Amino acid sequence: MANSVEILERLLSLPPRSPHPITYSWLVPNVKGFDNFLSTWHSKSESGQDAYPTPPPSPGTDNGPALNTSSSDPNAMPSAASGAEAMGKDREPTTPTHELSIFTAATESFTQKNTNCSIAESLKRFEPIMTKAKEVNVNVRAYISVAFGCPYEGPNVDPHKVADLAVSLLEMGANEISVADTTGMGTAPKTLELLKTLNAAGIDKSDLALHFHDTYGQALVNSVVALEHGIRTFDAAVGGLGGCPFSPGATGNVATEDLVHCFHSLGAKTGVDIEKLSEVGEWITQELGTPNASRAGKATISQLRKARN
Amino acid sequence: MANSVEILERLLSLPPRSPHPITYSWLVPNVKGFDNFLSTWHSKSESGQDAYPTPPPSPGTDNGPALNTSSSDPNAMPSAASGAEAMGKDREPTTPTHELSIFTAATESFTQKNTNCSIAESLKRFEPIMTKAKEVNVNVRAYISVAFGCPYEGPNVDPHKVADLAVSLLEMGANEISVADTTGMGTAPKTLELLKTLNAAGIDKSDLALHFHDTYGQALVNSVVALEHGIRTFDAAVGGLGGCPFSPGATGNVATEDLVHCFHSLGAKTGVDIEKLSEVGEWITQELGTPNASRAGKATISQLRKARN
Repeated sequence: MANSVEILERLLSLPPRSPHPITYSWLVPNVKGFDNFLSTWHSKSESGQDAYPTPPPSPGTDNGPALNTSSSDPNAMPSAASGAEAMGKDREPTTPTHELSIFTAATESFTQKNTNCSIAESLKRFEPIMTKAKEVNVNVRAYISVAFGCPYEGPNVDPHKVADLAVSLLEMGANEISVADTTGMGTAPKTLELLKTLNAAGIDKSDLALHFHDTYGQALVNSVVALEHGIRTFDAAVGGLGGCPFSPGATGNVATEDLVHCFHSLGAKTGVDIEKLSEVGEWITQELGTPNASRAGKATISQLRKARN
Repeated sequence: MANSVEILERLLSLPPRSPHPITYSWLVPNVKGFDNFLSTWHSKSESGQDAYPTPPPSPGTDNGPALNTSSSDPNAMPSAASGAEAMGKDREPTTPTHELSIFTAATESFTQKNTNCSIAESLKRFEPIMTKAKEVNVNVRAYISVAFGCPYEGPNVDPHKVADLAVSLLEMGANEISVADTTGMGTAPKTLELLKTLNAAGIDKSDLALHFHDTYGQALVNSVVALEHGIRTFDAAVGGLGGCPFSPGATGNVATEDLVHCFHSLGAKTGVDIEKLSEVGEWITQELGTPNASRAGKATISQLRKARN
């Protein structure tokens, strides 16, 4: 939780307001991490049970993609059938919610290198986190890394292994599974095959998020396949930030700007202002001194500057 | 033809040999340009008619995408029904062929800025080039720029205008039309709409090439749509080189490496070695001092280096 504690403290002291609800994900590698999270929460919050993170609403009906966690799906908001009312009458809809993130991987080699344990052991570690999360009524998002290819075991990861893991995590109490293409080895046919396998395993599309990296430039192609297959939750990072220290040569997540531009072009409603998003991407990459890896972001900024001149 | 003359002279003096036939395209803005081309040809070639550029074979049956002009379609080669035999028995199949390129655009503003004439005038200029090209039996490739969006007239370019132009160019004698998304404003729905409009205008898919720029990151998504719609000829540039001086903010063509990686993932046969291609992209971008804009290229190079260590 190193830096996360500071960020959490800041968010609790000065909760950012946004036109759409935001859910912050907090990585908890083990029970100790969760305890750290809770103690920060308690110290910064005014009082007991009310101060616990409120779980986000469950995803709404199929009327558009969300670009963050299910709770931030703006399409879910207007729907009476959605869990939007679960946001509560006694809290601002614009204040953030929080969830926990746990990570495992689809291959033994990656799990060993990344978390120094077997896949089975990683699941064991999650059990007390899940139990505790349920007690304090906080949602848990489980990531399955290298689901489309592993830097140690190659591009052919068994989709049934991913489906088995997803089922185990959901049965254990995970609220959402993020299927991650950590290495960017995902392709359109592999995406389709994996989604069909997950579906055949009885996993509901609304319990799934897709998490693509653009290492081989295929993230948008794969995202369109997933979108057409009914997936509505996608992970992305402005400016294409990110990467994976355990996946040599891996570049960042698919750029949010590229994904939003693509989904908008397909007629999807994301609730995201592409111009403001592009400005955020340009700002943060400049702050970090890294190239802006979003093509749509850079092109949008270029158009904006042209319009201003 | 500025630098082109030197390159043409070099190619004629030392024709490169390749496992697949290569067609070189020579931009001829007007009849004078064509005359320059022919005089270079004559001065460097040994004798008359035989030395004229041999037209490439017409595209073969629908069994995979070509990644350059129709003549370089490796899928066309094994097909008895294809024009492969037109390569001739009296010439090496591995020596290059040549074709001429002419450019017009789908909007009046772009045509004015780019070629200082109206679209109708640009067609008029092509007539003598076409006539002369037929006389010397050389193929002509016609580009329609800004077919998916114009820097001066915006993203809504009438697909019927593009279809009318394509029909005029084909009737005039063009052997292939390259429909160019100069600004990168193309999207999946726009690609589909344009291809349907071209089809409704009676244009054969085998007479079309698609030419995407990755300015907004949509080039692969659009290419997959075109591939699924039966297009088998795509323009691309290693390392994502290129751009357009008349399209402010425009980045390069879609990277050949990204396109090849994508098409291979879909099971298409391109005849291209992705590793060798990636090395070419890495080499040329280093030579030019520009960033390698190909994601698949960079990732492939990274994998190759890892394998060597």
